[in-house]
Amino acid sequence: MRMYDLIYTKKMGGALTPEQISYWARGAAQGTVPDEQSAALLMAICWQGMTIDETLALTLAMRDSGDRVDLSSIPGVKVDKHSTGGVGDKTTLILGPIVAACGVPCAMFSGRGLGHTGGTVDKYAAIPGLKVELTVEEFKASLRTTGFANSAQTGDIAPADRKLYALRDVTATVESIPLITASIMSKKLAGGSDALVLDVKSGGGAFMKTLDDSRALAQSMVNVGKAHGMKIKALITRMDEPLGWAIGNALEVMESVEILKGQHGSSDLAQMSFRLAAEMLVLGGVATTLAEAQAKVAAVVANGQAMDVFRRWTTFNGGEAAALDDFSRLPQPGQIVEIKATQPGHVHAIDGRALGLLGMELGAGRKSKDDVLDLGVGIALLTGVGRELRPGDTAFRIYAKKGARIDPEAYLQCLTLAPQPAQAQPWLLETVE
Amino acid sequence: MRMYDLIYTKKMGGALTPEQISYWARGAAQGTVPDEQSAALLMAICWQGMTIDETLALTLAMRDSGDRVDLSSIPGVKVDKHSTGGVGDKTTLILGPIVAACGVPCAMFSGRGLGHTGGTVDKYAAIPGLKVELTVEEFKASLRTTGFANSAQTGDIAPADRKLYALRDVTATVESIPLITASIMSKKLAGGSDALVLDVKSGGGAFMKTLDDSRALAQSMVNVGKAHGMKIKALITRMDEPLGWAIGNALEVMESVEILKGQHGSSDLAQMSFRLAAEMLVLGGVATTLAEAQAKVAAVVANGQAMDVFRRWTTFNGGEAAALDDFSRLPQPGQIVEIKATQPGHVHAIDGRALGLLGMELGAGRKSKDDVLDLGVGIALLTGVGRELRPGDTAFRIYAKKGARIDPEAYLQCLTLAPQPAQAQPWLLETVE
Repeated sequence: MRMYDLIYTKKMGGALTPEQISYWARGAAQGTVPDEQSAALLMAICWQGMTIDETLALTLAMRDSGDRVDLSSIPGVKVDKHSTGGVGDKTTLILGPIVAACGVPCAMFSGRGLGHTGGTVDKYAAIPGLKVELTVEEFKASLRTTGFANSAQTGDIAPADRKLYALRDVTATVESIPLITASIMSKKLAGGSDALVLDVKSGGGAFMKTLDDSRALAQSMVNVGKAHGMKIKALITRMDEPLGWAIGNALEVMESVEILKGQHGSSDLAQMSFRLAAEMLVLGGVATTLAEAQAKVAAVVANGQAMDVFRRWTTFNGGEAAALDDFSRLPQPGQIVEIKATQPGHVHAIDGRALGLLGMELGAGRKSKDDVLDLGVGIALLTGVGRELRPGDTAFRIYAKKGARIDPEAYLQCLTLAPQPAQAQPWLLETVE
Repeated sequence: MRMYDLIYTKKMGGALTPEQISYWARGAAQGTVPDEQSAALLMAICWQGMTIDETLALTLAMRDSGDRVDLSSIPGVKVDKHSTGGVGDKTTLILGPIVAACGVPCAMFSGRGLGHTGGTVDKYAAIPGLKVELTVEEFKASLRTTGFANSAQTGDIAPADRKLYALRDVTATVESIPLITASIMSKKLAGGSDALVLDVKSGGGAFMKTLDDSRALAQSMVNVGKAHGMKIKALITRMDEPLGWAIGNALEVMESVEILKGQHGSSDLAQMSFRLAAEMLVLGGVATTLAEAQAKVAAVVANGQAMDVFRRWTTFNGGEAAALDDFSRLPQPGQIVEIKATQPGHVHAIDGRALGLLGMELGAGRKSKDDVLDLGVGIALLTGVGRELRPGDTAFRIYAKKGARIDPEAYLQCLTLAPQPAQAQPWLLETVE
């Protein structure tokens, strides 16, 4: 087999065989396929696309390039959730304890943040002492004992994806629906869960800017999951303004705990977290209808069982559960700066991507992979689309490092104000099964 | 400047600035741009193309990456010819002495063969003693003294092209009109000639299979040449069957000498060589019309002046001119095998590409860059499109190494026979100025 033939076939719009795709993925992971040939093939895939069969084959080849987690010894339908990444998205922290409290084992591998979006693992790291890098045995023990497990990727999961992702990152070939599908689904299949709910973000703050692209990605991932016998459903959700009031790791833990304690119940963040949890309960087989599942979700939030799971899980994984009830035990900022509106107006839009980048500059996110985060810094958004601001109203509260210079204009520019009233937009755009 | 931005811009269909293109070409030549990023950009260029301005900028950047030959000390309009490569194409050997005999300095840098097509430098190497790798000073001395100079590329010409071509070769990105244009024209501009006639091949034995592609390539090269003040014209010529009767290096020298001595004057090969020479005379300013130029060409062939230049040039460059009049002094084959037709029929087509590959297998061409050629082997084609074959007629004479096994069927399969008479096709398809 020659890489040249694979590249030429794809360049001319042909389809690769599963054997060819497996040869490539294995060769990329092992270093026997030169990077320049992989790069050319990646660009040809961006150009010509991949059939469903090719996407399936690439997903399997990447899954099989490394370790696989075997959760079969844990009873029940193990469910996972994946989000394509947004600003202020802390739904994992909220839905994990809820799903577990409803009796469905919730097994999630999460990532670290990069660029304007945060990562779940970083948010958990704000809880003092909590272990976020588990061995497979520790992961299974947490799942068995508390009903919930969450860890940074463990072992050598999908090294072919790691290698190809690093190449895509420097060759402008990240944006390709089959490549994104195979990258996500290979890791999810290797993670060992039986069911998966996908949260595909769409809009200015998301990776997929248009509904068409988001729908195509959702459908592609659902196709691959189904073909491998996974129970799977995708929600396409709007990502323009940040999700919830908190951006930054300790702040996002606080907001998640507040929602698990029954506060902000009507917010988009709460509604989205509860809906995702309910979808997971349906796939997990403990509810036959979405309405039944939503009632269960509401019950375990109201009666405190979800919050109890969060505390037990935190303690089991070495974390200080007391910090969930006393936020002064979480990492603190060096200074807090209030930013007040200077112009009157109704808020028509909030630039989530720009706020994500400002949060990154504060130290809440990473510019490059090796950056060290300040877990106590971040942004509290004290307004929202559809609300009115008057000059002097506090629009943002900035949690910053000591001595950091804050430019109020940079934050105020993230708000689009207009004299006429604005309507908040629905967070759920579509579902794909 | 970041390569990522260049790749992304091109992937999205945008145009690169001259500064960006120069940054890339220089970085590729110097090794500061990683191969995987160049490979991704090359594939994106195959996908999205390049504007004329981008192609111009890439041509200039590659030309300026290395040495340039300065022929300004030689009086007259220095003319060059370039062919995109065909099977049995020995027009350079024929037209060089003709153009020089007509008083136009003919300065050509030629290449070595690879795959099914031969290279002019290899053909010259069949003349015993002839130096085919000249220094710039030797090249200029030959041009000044004999009116003709031909050498393998001298000095460090267009190293950025050399580097990118090697990458294109392994990443299936050779076939791109702007990339082919810049590769050829950067070397031609660095070669220092004032005028250039292009022979763009089209058809089954050529790199460009369709007339549309050939026309686009010809127009692209003419555009770039004109933009740099070069006198330039392109002929688009048919390349299906081999050009002339000889495939193989010593055999092609023999056929060239025969034509320079006035034999086979009505053959496609002679007609094409004479026409290309006449175009060079017009660009060189010694004839105002093509008809006038063609009369000059006919005269120097008829009166022996062209052949005299060939002998003088051969001697000047260390070669044994006697071999041009006594072919037994040229490299000889180990055995000669006649292949006779087994079926009757009219010849409707001859597969030039397949014969080129058979010649390569005999040792007349290179499978890979470092192969050593046998200059005495090759194929004599004793039939042609439009001619009739009867069983027992000799269709091919194979000049092979001693002990080489020849499979007659492989050769006979290159002929398409049919009961009805066949019409020979014209060799000239179009001209582009």
